[in-house]
Amino acid sequence: MKVTVWNENRHEQKNPDVRKAYPKGIHGAIAGFLEQNGYEVSGATLDEPEHGLTDEVLNNTDVLFWWGHIAHDEVDDAVVEKIKQRVLSGMGLIVLHSGHLSKIFRALMGTSCDLKWREADERERIWVCNPGHPIAEGVGENIELSKEEMYGEHFDIPAPDELVFISWFEGGEVFRSGCTFRRGKGKIFYFRPGHETYPTYHNPEIQRVLLNAVKWAKPSANPTPVYGNAKPLETISVKD
Amino acid sequence: MKVTVWNENRHEQKNPDVRKAYPKGIHGAIAGFLEQNGYEVSGATLDEPEHGLTDEVLNNTDVLFWWGHIAHDEVDDAVVEKIKQRVLSGMGLIVLHSGHLSKIFRALMGTSCDLKWREADERERIWVCNPGHPIAEGVGENIELSKEEMYGEHFDIPAPDELVFISWFEGGEVFRSGCTFRRGKGKIFYFRPGHETYPTYHNPEIQRVLLNAVKWAKPSANPTPVYGNAKPLETISVKD
Amino acid sequence: MKVTVWNENRHEQKNPDVRKAYPKGIHGAIAGFLEQNGYEVSGATLDEPEHGLTDEVLNNTDVLFWWGHIAHDEVDDAVVEKIKQRVLSGMGLIVLHSGHLSKIFRALMGTSCDLKWREADERERIWVCNPGHPIAEGVGENIELSKEEMYGEHFDIPAPDELVFISWFEGGEVFRSGCTFRRGKGKIFYFRPGHETYPTYHNPEIQRVLLNAVKWAKPSANPTPVYGNAKPLETISVKD
Amino acid sequence: MKVTVWNENRHEQKNPDVRKAYPKGIHGAIAGFLEQNGYEVSGATLDEPEHGLTDEVLNNTDVLFWWGHIAHDEVDDAVVEKIKQRVLSGMGLIVLHSGHLSKIFRALMGTSCDLKWREADERERIWVCNPGHPIAEGVGENIELSKEEMYGEHFDIPAPDELVFISWFEGGEVFRSGCTFRRGKGKIFYFRPGHETYPTYHNPEIQRVLLNAVKWAKPSANPTPVYGNAKPLETISVKD
Repeated sequence: MKVTVWNENRHEQKNPDVRKAYPKGIHGAIAGFLEQNGYEVSGATLDEPEHGLTDEVLNNTDVLFWWGHIAHDEVDDAVVEKIKQRVLSGMGLIVLHSGHLSKIFRALMGTSCDLKWREADERERIWVCNPGHPIAEGVGENIELSKEEMYGEHFDIPAPDELVFISWFEGGEVFRSGCTFRRGKGKIFYFRPGHETYPTYHNPEIQRVLLNAVKWAKPSANPTPVYGNAKPLETISVKD
Repeated sequence: MKVTVWNENRHEQKNPDVRKAYPKGIHGAIAGFLEQNGYEVSGATLDEPEHGLTDEVLNNTDVLFWWGHIAHDEVDDAVVEKIKQRVLSGMGLIVLHSGHLSKIFRALMGTSCDLKWREADERERIWVCNPGHPIAEGVGENIELSKEEMYGEHFDIPAPDELVFISWFEGGEVFRSGCTFRRGKGKIFYFRPGHETYPTYHNPEIQRVLLNAVKWAKPSANPTPVYGNAKPLETISVKD
Repeated sequence: MKVTVWNENRHEQKNPDVRKAYPKGIHGAIAGFLEQNGYEVSGATLDEPEHGLTDEVLNNTDVLFWWGHIAHDEVDDAVVEKIKQRVLSGMGLIVLHSGHLSKIFRALMGTSCDLKWREADERERIWVCNPGHPIAEGVGENIELSKEEMYGEHFDIPAPDELVFISWFEGGEVFRSGCTFRRGKGKIFYFRPGHETYPTYHNPEIQRVLLNAVKWAKPSANPTPVYGNAKPLETISVKD
Repeated sequence: MKVTVWNENRHEQKNPDVRKAYPKGIHGAIAGFLEQNGYEVSGATLDEPEHGLTDEVLNNTDVLFWWGHIAHDEVDDAVVEKIKQRVLSGMGLIVLHSGHLSKIFRALMGTSCDLKWREADERERIWVCNPGHPIAEGVGENIELSKEEMYGEHFDIPAPDELVFISWFEGGEVFRSGCTFRRGKGKIFYFRPGHETYPTYHNPEIQRVLLNAVKWAKPSANPTPVYGNAKPLETISVKD
């Protein structure tokens, strides 16, 4: 299992608070606990050539994390298209927090992926609404974060294949915080928390969710479907 | 369109606060705004013979409302089985609030339908998470109720076919408040609010949701599927 | 209710068999039975300026039909983007047959939308697998077409919100033939049959499905969600 | 992982053809390939005390297979209720073929679970319509069985959470052959093939599907949700 953690890595350069919360960058923090759990992990960032996502990297990635926020528009369309094809071919994709507006997530969803938000140091409670789901394994009834950015409904996504978490916010909003989607042979998990100024990715319960998500999103060893002109039954030999 | 509003009608007999909120009973309040909107409506209650749900009543009901709470166990199993067969044959069913633990809802869901609850006069905000759904038509972004009983996740239901509303509660919980399910040819809508001591069913926005739900749940004029031993293609004449 | 029927209208110009099956074009045939059922209908075709889909036309369309096949690439990206925004804002979209590879359908689905196909004059049986669905209203257990093009699984779409029809083909394939999707406030229905050389759109049962689909896909009068920076609960006055 | 394979085991006693196809019973055949793949497997049959499903057996079962046909009515309601509670608590359940009419499946689905059928030695092709699903891992585009009983739509089940396989039959029918459902904390997989007079469970591709299903259905180590009267947020200490 090879995991690539992609991070825009711009807030870390500009904002000392973010650097303090994530001295090795958000990608570094995520790579850290993944490595401690036995995964082979690489980081990739916006300002590298091809955003660090060369064909070789993408073709050797089983699960890709995506964190972006202020520079979605700077991601090259050709790279987005390549990621999309890899997801449809089976690569897992875990989209974090403000990645909801990334080109890759919007291209795979087909909707605006817009939402309400507020930065007000609000308490968040992430409730499990699918208690037998593998992504919620080992998580309690809810995960409580003392301070986070608020994201609120309506979240303009297609109805998720599975809804795993719903968030409650102090200021009066709710949000579908953990959503799974299948697209082609690939599995996608969107997970809400993780604003850059809070130490969210250091929280052991958040880490547990992300570790579960990696396991869940790993590619299946299914043959790729054959599309196009097909022969009829008569010409196919029966197998049994 | 004939609508039957079934109500346990026990709180009304015992508790003056409930009688004050609903002088004609909860069923009377619901029947009232349905009639004002042109529906032919009857009430039916637990203590009538066959709970008011004779074969004649059930066979002439297009959409059935269900409100029950403290006497679920007193509902006769034979009546429950008849209601279930009518739903599978196409009758719409709208289950309200504490009806989540009714025999009919649990029989159609196959799960415990259990949940968390608290009576603490809490503020509730019912958010629309499916803004193009006909049951949310004409409703704003959320419906705010100043005081209601809290219901919280996990709500032990099958994943709803469509999730229309999610509630936020002052005390820290969320709840899947508006859920649709199809069972056989019938459409089912579960709607959370409506604790007996609050004037919830007098709220015009709540009424709007229920009016929309009646329209949505009405039976389709589809032929009933034929089950059992079937002839193969060769013996069926082509229609076109 | 205003319906616009968009047709590529190229086969009709090149192939006398298609002209024979559809003397007024595929769009003319569809417009015909829609008008007979009381809808206000306009046609629009690829070779008109802006493909016949000006802002005025789009903004006044409640439900858009889409039939395309050999010239998907010639549809202007700017027009596709406008249609997509209209769907997300609530316009219904009915995608027919080879429209599965249209730019607009792929943009809304986020997948390749590819499939297996074969032109071999095969018998098709379109089975209802959701007998209470409004799009199947008045349709029998299946619709049998004596000759159609085959489309087979795997059909590379997101799991549909509702699966209404599954097709059986003589040569050994199956296909998810009637699928609903919600995107933003808009409703989308994909319906498989309708190869240009067969008189499929003259079949009364096929017409019945499409008439049902128009009713189902009509925009709801729901307020548009507000996205972006939101005020917290404390500043919002309670409505009830 | 402990697997219990429950089989009605009546056809095997009465019909020499079934004994020939399954000398050790259908449960013996299934237990055989599960054991070869490293699972700890027990059989249980209708005519044992408590149908072989004592509290001790059920409480130690991670995944339960269910094959029944002609004696559904003889299964004790109290045992059915215990199985249902175990599924809601997390035990996986794999329902095979004619088990669609078993008491346990119908109790968990809430519908009639009826369907069309025909015994005519027809060819069946089971198509994968969800190529990234773990239950389809290692399976080709379709599984072809030269002779099986036909099952046809409409299959009266709730919309499955995931549709993995659709069957094609020589005589003109289609069927949703591989369906997943979550109920409570438990995962349920229904798989169509396996009429008693055909050697279906000796087919390596069918075995592969069932092995995948066991892995998929295994219980998650999630805490059991707490239901009932709940304390508000203020009294709960923040965890992070």
